[in-house]
Amino acid sequence: MSQHAIRVLATVDAVAGYTTYIDLIRPLISGKQIVSTSMQKEVDRVSAALDLALAGTACAVVSSGDPGVYAMAGLVLEMCRRRSIAIGGSDRPEDEDRLFIEVVPGIPALCSGASLLGAPLTHDFAAISLSDLLTPWETIEKRVEAAARADFVIVIYNPKSRRRTDHLTHAQEIILRHRDPATPVGVVTGAMRDNQRVTLTTLEALDRAHVDMQTTVFVGNSTTFNYDGFMITPRGYAKKYDIAGQQC
Amino acid sequence: MSQHAIRVLATVDAVAGYTTYIDLIRPLISGKQIVSTSMQKEVDRVSAALDLALAGTACAVVSSGDPGVYAMAGLVLEMCRRRSIAIGGSDRPEDEDRLFIEVVPGIPALCSGASLLGAPLTHDFAAISLSDLLTPWETIEKRVEAAARADFVIVIYNPKSRRRTDHLTHAQEIILRHRDPATPVGVVTGAMRDNQRVTLTTLEALDRAHVDMQTTVFVGNSTTFNYDGFMITPRGYAKKYDIAGQQC
Repeated sequence: MSQHAIRVLATVDAVAGYTTYIDLIRPLISGKQIVSTSMQKEVDRVSAALDLALAGTACAVVSSGDPGVYAMAGLVLEMCRRRSIAIGGSDRPEDEDRLFIEVVPGIPALCSGASLLGAPLTHDFAAISLSDLLTPWETIEKRVEAAARADFVIVIYNPKSRRRTDHLTHAQEIILRHRDPATPVGVVTGAMRDNQRVTLTTLEALDRAHVDMQTTVFVGNSTTFNYDGFMITPRGYAKKYDIAGQQC
Repeated sequence: MSQHAIRVLATVDAVAGYTTYIDLIRPLISGKQIVSTSMQKEVDRVSAALDLALAGTACAVVSSGDPGVYAMAGLVLEMCRRRSIAIGGSDRPEDEDRLFIEVVPGIPALCSGASLLGAPLTHDFAAISLSDLLTPWETIEKRVEAAARADFVIVIYNPKSRRRTDHLTHAQEIILRHRDPATPVGVVTGAMRDNQRVTLTTLEALDRAHVDMQTTVFVGNSTTFNYDGFMITPRGYAKKYDIAGQQC
C-alpha cells in the first residue's frame, strides 16, 4: 500500500469494502466504523458510504489493486451523478455545498502481476475484462480481435466468471488467429497475497492453465520472449538501444 | 511510494537512475552509492548497475511510475540476456551462480493521472506510446486506429518528443474518425509532483492542450462523461447495476 493511501485511511472515520479487502487492512483501521461488510452488493455498499459522507462521516471505499482500473472509483462517481450529489476535488476552491471526493491511486493487478513475471508491459498494451455481466460479449470479442491484430500485449482481467468458464478459451482462439502459438503467456493469481501463483505458459497451452476469479493473464506481443524464467517484452521494434531522452 | 519499495531501497547499497528521480528520493538513500547520475544514456546506466550487482553490491535501478510500464525493468532484463547473465527470482531455490533480480511494482502514470481526473479507466483501455524512437510510426498509427475503432479508452504516453511535436495531432485525427468530437479527454502533466497540471478538454480541442514530455493523455470511450469536473467511464454498456460477485 502507498504512503498516500495509509495517510488517507488514517484520516477517515469509516471504511466500506468487500470483507476480503477489509480483512487485509484490519491493523490500519481499528476503531473505525466498518460499512456493510455483510452486504454483497457493491451498489448498496457505495450508497451507504455516500450516505455516511453526506452526514459528515468521512468514509473510505476500498478495493484491491488500483481503485480506478475496473474498480470502485468509477462506481462511486457514477452513483454521485445518479443521486445528483454535488461533488468537488482538492484542486478546486473549498465549497461547503459539495461533497469532497478524492481518488487515491494504487498498484493495479496489471503492474503487480507484471512485476512477478518480469517485464511483459514494456511496450503498448491493452487491458480487457472478459466479464460479460455489464458488457455484451460481442464488444469484448471485438476488442480482443483488435488488440490481437494490432500486436498489443494483452492483459486479461476476469478470465473466468462463476457463470461461464469458456471465455478465456474463446479469447485464446481469437488471439491465435493473429499470433504465434508459442507466444509467451504469463498467468498470475493472487499477486502479493498468500495464495500467489505465477505460471509461464504459451498461447497454445493457455486453455490448460489454472485460472480463477483472482487471475490476471498476460499475453505477449510478437516480440515478447522468455529468459531464465522471466517474461520480457522489449522496448523497441527498431532494435536501437543507444538513445537518450525518453521518458522512463 | 509503496512500503515494499521503501523496504527494498533500504536494503540496497547502490542506486542508479536519472537525476530527476534520484533527487525525489534523496532522503531515502543517504549514504548509498549513486550510479552515474551524469550519464544520460540509459543503457550505460543499466550496464553499470549490472556490473556493480555482479561484483556483489546490491543495486536498485529506479524510474518514475511503475518500472514495468514503458520503463526500466524491461531494459534491465533485456541487458541481462544480451550479456548472457544468468538470473533468478525469489520464487526459485537459492542459486549462487545466478544474479537475483526483483521487479518492485509501483503506481504507473496511467493510474496516478486517472485518479486526478476521476475514473476514466473503469473499462477496457489501451496504453500507447507515441514515441517513434524505437517503434516505427506505422505500427503506432495502426495501434491508435485499432484502439479507436474498438472503443477502448486510450492512454497516450509520450505525446510529444523533442524531435517531433505533431504526433499527438496525428493521433487525434485518427481517433476522430471513430469517436465523437465532444468525447471527454483528460490531460495530466507531472502527476503528484510540484508541476502537476490537470485539464479536462475534448477530443476536437486536444491539439490545443498544453502537453510536454511529462504529460499523459486520457481519451474517453463512447460512454465516458464528465460530471462536476470529474471524468468518468462507466463500468457497463448494459446499464445494469445491481450485480454482485465481480472482482473489484
